[in-house]
Order: sequence, then structure tokens, then C-alpha cells
Amino acid sequence: MSDVVLEQLDEAECLRLIAPGGIGRLVFAGRYDLTEQPVNYKMHNGAILFRTAENSTTDEDLRTGIAHAEYRVAFEIDDFDPAAREGWSVLVQGPAHHVDSESERAEVETAGVESWAGGSREHFIRIHPARITGRRIRRRPTA
Amino acid sequence: MSDVVLEQLDEAECLRLIAPGGIGRLVFAGRYDLTEQPVNYKMHNGAILFRTAENSTTDEDLRTGIAHAEYRVAFEIDDFDPAAREGWSVLVQGPAHHVDSESERAEVETAGVESWAGGSREHFIRIHPARITGRRIRRRPTA
Repeated sequence: MSDVVLEQLDEAECLRLIAPGGIGRLVFAGRYDLTEQPVNYKMHNGAILFRTAENSTTDEDLRTGIAHAEYRVAFEIDDFDPAAREGWSVLVQGPAHHVDSESERAEVETAGVESWAGGSREHFIRIHPARITGRRIRRRPTA
Repeated sequence: MSDVVLEQLDEAECLRLIAPGGIGRLVFAGRYDLTEQPVNYKMHNGAILFRTAENSTTDEDLRTGIAHAEYRVAFEIDDFDPAAREGWSVLVQGPAHHVDSESERAEVETAGVESWAGGSREHFIRIHPARITGRRIRRRPTA
């Protein structure tokens, strides 16, 4: 038997957990429905940074959405251990921006973020966290 | 060196991949922002089935949303291998429903879906897939 411990994580702990980068999941409103897409991200100057693919309807929706001013998205990162039934998740909410000026691009290129899908994914997108929340679930053995 | 192969998956393959259940990620429009929350799900009669927690704002938003007629959500399941940079993701879009009649509850209880968070999570939610899409990324060694 075990007791479940469900913790809310503070922002500092969330930032520590998501600092290494890796797979995160982008949530956005597509043309018809809510959509979610895994991407490979890095943290760069306090923002989430990733490249977009250019060959699917969802990506087109995303680019169209971001082109319109304050386009709010969510970004989720998690790590679970199915055997132990433990893990954590962090949710970042905030506006998404294209990185389009030359100076910005030069700067984010130093971050070295890559899309797993490869190819010419030259659109960098940055999410500035407006709200960061997280929780952790763990088990405490009982007698 | 390797070539990246990006495949779109058909519905049958998506259903096969998500059949075992496990951790999936629920995407919904909260009161203020898009939200995403990992849950433990099972497939049951072609629908995604999970239990909701009852102790957070997001859960409250979800319950409030679902109470209002056709509440569309998305549900994402994936499996990635960071070392190989390969993996797949499936996105289910469709309406979410509370399971509330006695007969429905009795039926879904046989599915044995559990929330990792434990406690008295007596709200079952079912998502009927209206659209199922997926993709797989893999690497083909090159000479």
C-alpha cells in the first residue's frame, strides 16, 4: 500500500524541471479545434524556444494564429514513471511570437535548438511564460 | 548520418497505438487560457475514458465546460525515444462527456480505469473521437 502525495510546484521548481529542454507539447487553437503537437524545445533567456515544421495543416494554423497579434498558447512538459505511477508536469501559458528580426534570429540560433524532423525548419517560435504552474505526484510507502 | 522519415499515420494505426492506455494529455479551454493536463486513460468501446481530479482550478474549469453541451477537447498520446530521436504521437479531437447515468457508470466501472492521484475521483469523462490523426518520426541509416 502507499499514500499518494500530490504537490503543487512553485515557479522556481517548475523552471528548474524544464531547464534541460527536450520534448514539450505545444497547445494551440487550430482553425477548427484545439490542437496539441510535441516539439523539441530549449529554454533561452527565460522563454521556450522551438522550430516549427512546415508541412502540415496544424503548422499552418499555428503560423496563421501567431501572425495575429497576441496569440496565446500553452506548453506542457512532463516526466512520468508508469511503473511507480509517479511523475511531474509543468504548464506554461503565454503569448507565442515568431522570431523574425535579423538580430533576434542571430541570437536564438546560438541556442542551438533543433527540430527532430530536420529539414529546413527556419521558423523559430518563442513563448514568453505569463504563468507557470506545475504539480508532482509521488507515493509514500505506508506500513 | 541518418535520413528523417516523417509518416502520417492512418486511423487504424493510431487506434492500435493508443489501445493499451496509460498516460494521455487532455487539452481544453479553461476559463482564461488553454490548458493541458496529463491523465491516466483507458480505451473503452472506442472512446477515451479517464477520471477527473476534484481539487484544482483546471479540474473545475473542465467540469464547468463539459456541463455546457458540446464541449470539444483534444487528447494527445505519444511515445518518444530521446536518444534515438524517434517516436510517434496521436491526436484525438472530439466532444467530452460526463458519464453520469447509473447504467453508464456501471458499464465504465468495468473498464477499471484509475486516476494515479487516487482519492475519491468519481467523475468519469469520456471523449468520443471525431477525428484521429497521428504521425511517426523515425530515422533511416544512410551510408
